[in-house]
Amino acid sequence: MTTQNTPDADARYDRLRELGQQLRVDSVRAADAAGSGHPTSSMSAADLAAVLLDTHLRYDFDDPENPGNDHLIFSKGHASPLVYAMGKAAGALTDEQLLTFRKNGSLLEGHPTPRIPWVDVATGSLGQGLPFGVGVALAGRDLDRVPYRVWVVCGDSEMAEGSMWEAFEHAGYEKLANLTAIIDVNRLGQRGATRHGWDLDAYARRIRSFDWHTIEVDGHDVAAVDRAYAEAAATTDRPTAIIAKTRKGQGVREVADQEGKHGKPLKDAAEAIEELGGARDLHVTVQPPREAAPRLRTGGGTPELPDYKVGDSVATRNAFGEALAALGAAREDVVALDGEVGDSTRAQKFGDAHPDRYFQCYIAEQQMVAAAVGMQVRGWVPYATTFAAFLSRAYDFVRMAAVSRADLNLVGSHAGVAIGEDGPSQMGLEDLAAFRAVHGSTVLYPCDANQAARLTAAMADASGIRYLRTSRGESPVIYGPGEDFPIGGSKTLRATPEDRVTLVAAGVTVHEALAAADTLAEEGVAARVIDLYSLKPVDLPTLREAADVTGRIITVEDHHPEGGLGDAVLDAFTDGRPVPRLARLAVRTMPGSASPEEQLRAAGIDAQAIAATARGLLTSTP
Amino acid sequence: MTTQNTPDADARYDRLRELGQQLRVDSVRAADAAGSGHPTSSMSAADLAAVLLDTHLRYDFDDPENPGNDHLIFSKGHASPLVYAMGKAAGALTDEQLLTFRKNGSLLEGHPTPRIPWVDVATGSLGQGLPFGVGVALAGRDLDRVPYRVWVVCGDSEMAEGSMWEAFEHAGYEKLANLTAIIDVNRLGQRGATRHGWDLDAYARRIRSFDWHTIEVDGHDVAAVDRAYAEAAATTDRPTAIIAKTRKGQGVREVADQEGKHGKPLKDAAEAIEELGGARDLHVTVQPPREAAPRLRTGGGTPELPDYKVGDSVATRNAFGEALAALGAAREDVVALDGEVGDSTRAQKFGDAHPDRYFQCYIAEQQMVAAAVGMQVRGWVPYATTFAAFLSRAYDFVRMAAVSRADLNLVGSHAGVAIGEDGPSQMGLEDLAAFRAVHGSTVLYPCDANQAARLTAAMADASGIRYLRTSRGESPVIYGPGEDFPIGGSKTLRATPEDRVTLVAAGVTVHEALAAADTLAEEGVAARVIDLYSLKPVDLPTLREAADVTGRIITVEDHHPEGGLGDAVLDAFTDGRPVPRLARLAVRTMPGSASPEEQLRAAGIDAQAIAATARGLLTSTP
Repeated sequence: MTTQNTPDADARYDRLRELGQQLRVDSVRAADAAGSGHPTSSMSAADLAAVLLDTHLRYDFDDPENPGNDHLIFSKGHASPLVYAMGKAAGALTDEQLLTFRKNGSLLEGHPTPRIPWVDVATGSLGQGLPFGVGVALAGRDLDRVPYRVWVVCGDSEMAEGSMWEAFEHAGYEKLANLTAIIDVNRLGQRGATRHGWDLDAYARRIRSFDWHTIEVDGHDVAAVDRAYAEAAATTDRPTAIIAKTRKGQGVREVADQEGKHGKPLKDAAEAIEELGGARDLHVTVQPPREAAPRLRTGGGTPELPDYKVGDSVATRNAFGEALAALGAAREDVVALDGEVGDSTRAQKFGDAHPDRYFQCYIAEQQMVAAAVGMQVRGWVPYATTFAAFLSRAYDFVRMAAVSRADLNLVGSHAGVAIGEDGPSQMGLEDLAAFRAVHGSTVLYPCDANQAARLTAAMADASGIRYLRTSRGESPVIYGPGEDFPIGGSKTLRATPEDRVTLVAAGVTVHEALAAADTLAEEGVAARVIDLYSLKPVDLPTLREAADVTGRIITVEDHHPEGGLGDAVLDAFTDGRPVPRLARLAVRTMPGSASPEEQLRAAGIDAQAIAATARGLLTSTP
Repeated sequence: MTTQNTPDADARYDRLRELGQQLRVDSVRAADAAGSGHPTSSMSAADLAAVLLDTHLRYDFDDPENPGNDHLIFSKGHASPLVYAMGKAAGALTDEQLLTFRKNGSLLEGHPTPRIPWVDVATGSLGQGLPFGVGVALAGRDLDRVPYRVWVVCGDSEMAEGSMWEAFEHAGYEKLANLTAIIDVNRLGQRGATRHGWDLDAYARRIRSFDWHTIEVDGHDVAAVDRAYAEAAATTDRPTAIIAKTRKGQGVREVADQEGKHGKPLKDAAEAIEELGGARDLHVTVQPPREAAPRLRTGGGTPELPDYKVGDSVATRNAFGEALAALGAAREDVVALDGEVGDSTRAQKFGDAHPDRYFQCYIAEQQMVAAAVGMQVRGWVPYATTFAAFLSRAYDFVRMAAVSRADLNLVGSHAGVAIGEDGPSQMGLEDLAAFRAVHGSTVLYPCDANQAARLTAAMADASGIRYLRTSRGESPVIYGPGEDFPIGGSKTLRATPEDRVTLVAAGVTVHEALAAADTLAEEGVAARVIDLYSLKPVDLPTLREAADVTGRIITVEDHHPEGGLGDAVLDAFTDGRPVPRLARLAVRTMPGSASPEEQLRAAGIDAQAIAATARGLLTSTP
C-alpha cells in the first residue's frame, strides 16, 4: 500500500530523512575520531532513531529526572555512536563532546552508561535492554502510574538470548502497552549472518505467540516507521514490537550490507560523509512529557522491625521476610520481586502485606533482576529474591547492574550445604565469591533473626549492589532485639586478652564456632569468636586487633573455599602489616543429600572440625 | 476423538495404567521414607513416564555406556522420586535402594546426578535439562551419527526460563528431529498457579513459532500419550514437544491439583498408597537400542601446536585459536562452540579447519554451555568460547555442570581492563572469582602465545570444569616454544637469593611485573617475579619458597580484588605456616573507555604502580 502524503508530510519526511543522514554522519565521525566503535550498527538504525527522536519520543533533555519523561533504552548498546548522535541532535551534547567518544575520561563510553544523565541503564551485554525496559514499564504502569512510554531499540543478533524471551513473556503476559520494542533487523551479526537474516516473520510470529502486537516495516522508510510508532502508541492492550528491515552500514556503499564491517570505523570517513550528503546541523526540538507528573516520594519512616527472643529458634529467611514486610509498611518506595519461590524465601510475607508492590516474575531470574534494575531507574528500592543458587542465573545482569550504577537489593535464601537433603543443585556455594567480585557491592550474611531483620532494613540505604544471604534452617537467636549491626561491622562474641586463636564465621558457622569455642574453653584454650556478618565491606579494625592478640585466624564458611569469607578476612591484612597464621575451613567436597548436621560434618565446617583445626594450629605454632 | 483399541492394546494400556500407579506409589514411598522430596510433582508425570519407559525408550540399563542408548533427561529434576521409581521398574534399582532416597551416602539424591550411571546430567536448577538435551541431540545427529532419541521431561514452571527458549530456538532452527520435549503441564508451581495454568495452547503456539512440531495431549490418557510418543518418533523434519495436561498429585485426593502440596511428602502415605491401589511390583523390559553403535573414538595423537618466536607480539587469543585448530587436527574428539563471536575469540580458526565439529550457538551463552555439557555426556571434548564477560551469562549452567561431573573447557577472551576502549560491559573482571569458586575447577590465564597454545592443549585432559582466560591485545612472546606449562605449575621469571619482594602476576600483568622488576633492579632492589598462569590449582611450593626468601608478596591482577589471583596465592599459606607480608593490586575502580595503557594505569596495575607498591612495602617492613 502506498500512502499519499500531504505536502506538509512530505516536507516532514524529507526532514526526517535528512536527520537520519545526520545521525549516520555523526556516527561515522564519532567512530572515526575514536579509531574504534560500531558505526555500521548505528547506521542501520539511524532512520528508526530519527523518526523516534523527532516525532514520538517525549523527553525533556534539560530535566532528565522529570518523572514524565519517556525512557529510551538501546538494548544494542554497541550502537552508542547513534545514541550520542541523537544526544547531539537533541541539544544534549555538543559536537566537541561527540568527538570525545571512547576517549579517556569522556562520558561517551564505548557502550552507554548512566554516567550520561539521560541514559537510564548500561547496556553492551546483549539481551539486557529489553528486560530492563520491562522493569521501567512495570514501574510506569504499576508504581509511578505516569503515562510515559518505554522505547527499546534491540538488535537482531540478541534475539537469540533467552533473556529477551523472558522479557517478551513477562511483558506480553502483563499486557505492558507502554512498552515498544524496535528490532533493528540488519541481517548481520558480528561474524556473519544472523540465524534468521531478513526473515522478519520469523521474529514476528515468535513475538506474537508471546501475546505482543507486531508490525513489520522497512526501517529506512521514514513514513512507514512514523506510522509504526503511531500504531504502537495507539495499541493500548498489549506491548508492540516493530520489526524493521534495515541494512547494516546503510548509506555508504563500502560497508552497506557487507560482512566483515562490524565494530570498526569506516576506512575513509571523509568519503563516506560525502556519500551521505555531508555534515548537517539539524536540531530537534524533542516533545516534552505528556503531563506534569509528581516527583518521586522519599523513603519515609523508620520501620518497626520484628523482635525475636534470645534463645528462640528462627530461620534468618523468616526474619528477612518479616522485616521486609515491616520495611514496606514504613517506606512506600520499597518493592519486592519473586522468582516463584516467595514461599521459600519468605518474600511472600511482603507480598501478603503489600500486594501492589510485589512483582511475581515466575522462574525467570534474569528478568527478575532486570525488572529490579528498571524499577530503581525510577527511584524505587527493589528487593529481588530467590534461592542463592539461582541468583547465579542472573550473574551477568548483576555485573551489568553495577555498570549501571544501580542501587539494588538481592536476597538469596537456602545458602550452603546447611540446606540438607535437597542436594547441591539447590545450595548456593559460589554466591559469596560471585557477589563480592561485583564492583562496589555490599555482601551480608546474618546468623540470627534479629541480625537478619536489621540488615534487611539497613541494606535499603546502602549504595550499589547489596546482597543478603539467608539460611533455610532455624538457628538460635543470639542477639537481643536492640542490637545494632552496621554495614561494615562485625560482632565479637567471645573475647579475652588471653585468646590464642580467632574463629571468624558468618551465618550458620557462627553457631558452630561458638560450640567449638566452648569445647576449646573446656580444654583450657581461649578462642575469640567473630561474627563477620558484613563480608564486604569487612570490619578491618576488629580483625586486625584479633590478629594482634591471637596471632592465629581460622575462617569457617558454608561456601566453597574461593572468594568467600576466607578471602574477605584477608582484606584486613593486605596493606603490608604482619599477617596472622591462617587456616581456612570451607566446603571442599561435592555434597550429596544428607541432613544439615551430616552436611556440616561431611564438609568439615562443624564445631568438631573447627576445634580440631584450632588444636592443630596451636600445636604447630606454639 | 475416541480410538477403538484392540483387546491386545486394551491389555497393554491397562498394564501401562498399572505401571503409572506403581510409579506414583513408589514416589510416595520414597518421599515418605526420606521425610522430604517432591512426590506430587512426580505423580503428575507418572503416566507420561510409564508409557515412555515401557514402550518408547530404548535403553540398556545393564550397559549405560552403550552408544546406541536413548537419553532420558528430567529437566524437572525435583521429580527425582519418579526417576528412581522408573529405575526400580526397569530393574536398575532395588526397592531397598529406592528407600535410601535423600539419605546420607545414597546415590539417590534430592535431585538426580550422574553419580547414578544411567543419569546423564544433574538437574534441579530449572530450565537446564532441555538445553542439555539439545546438546546430546546435536551430538547424536552430527557427531556420533547414531539414531538414538533424546527425551526430556520438562515442568511447566520452567517454561518461564529464557534458557528454555534458547533451546527451543536452537533445536527448531537445527531441525533436531531426534529430540522430544515432554512438558508436564500440571498447572501448579511451587507457590501457586503457573503463568499459563492449563492453557496448553499458550505453550503450543509459542513452541510452534520456534519451528517445532507440537502435540497437545491428556497426560493421564495412556493411549493418547502412547500415540503422541509414536508421532514424535515419526516426525523426522523437526523436534516435537508433547504438551501434556496433567494434575499435580494425580491419584490421591488429598493432594491432587491442590495448592500448598509442593515439595513435601504426603501426610498419610499408607492411606495414599491404598487409594492408589496399593504397592505393585511390575517389571519393565525396556527395549534395547536400535542398532549396535560403535564405541567412542579415543583422543588420539599429540597435536602439532603452533610455535611463536620470542620477542614477537602475539595476542593469547590468537594462540588459543591456532592451538585449538591444531588440537582438532590431532584429536577427533575435540569440538568447539561459538557464541557468535568466533572472529574475536579466534575459535573461528577451529571452525575453518574443522567445520563439521564447530557449532554456532549464536548469542545464547546458556545454550552454548549446555550444548557443551550435552556433548561431553557422549565423550566429546568441547571448548565453549565467548568473551570472558559473557560467560557470566551461563554461570548457573557452569555451576550445575560441576554437579554433573562434566568435563568441559570454557574459554573467555577479552579479559580485564586491558581491552581498552570498549568499556566495562565487555571486560571480564569477575570471571576468575566466579570460575575459581566452582567445585573442582581448573583456572588458567596465560601471558604469552606459547603458553596459551600449550595450556589450550593441556586443558583437554584435565578433569572437571576448566577455564582459560585470554587477552585481546598483543603481548610479547617471552617463552620459547619448547617450554612446558603443567597445570598447577608456575614460571619464576626472575629470581636471586637476594630477592626482597615477590611479584606474582598472570596474563597481562606479568609484563607489567617484569617492567616493574627492571625498574626496581635499577634502584638496587631485587624482585622475584612469578607468572602464576595456573590460578587453580596453584603452585604451592614455588609460592612458599618465594615467601621464605623474600617475606613479601605483591599480587597484581587485571580483575576485581575479590576471589582472583590475590585469593589464589593465599592457598599456599592457609595451613598455619607463617604468611608473608601482602599487598594486592587489582581493579578497584569502575573503568570507562580509554586505551589499554591508560586503563592499566588508571586501575593501578601497571609497572609504575607495582614498583611504587614494592617500594612502600619495603619501606614499611625494612
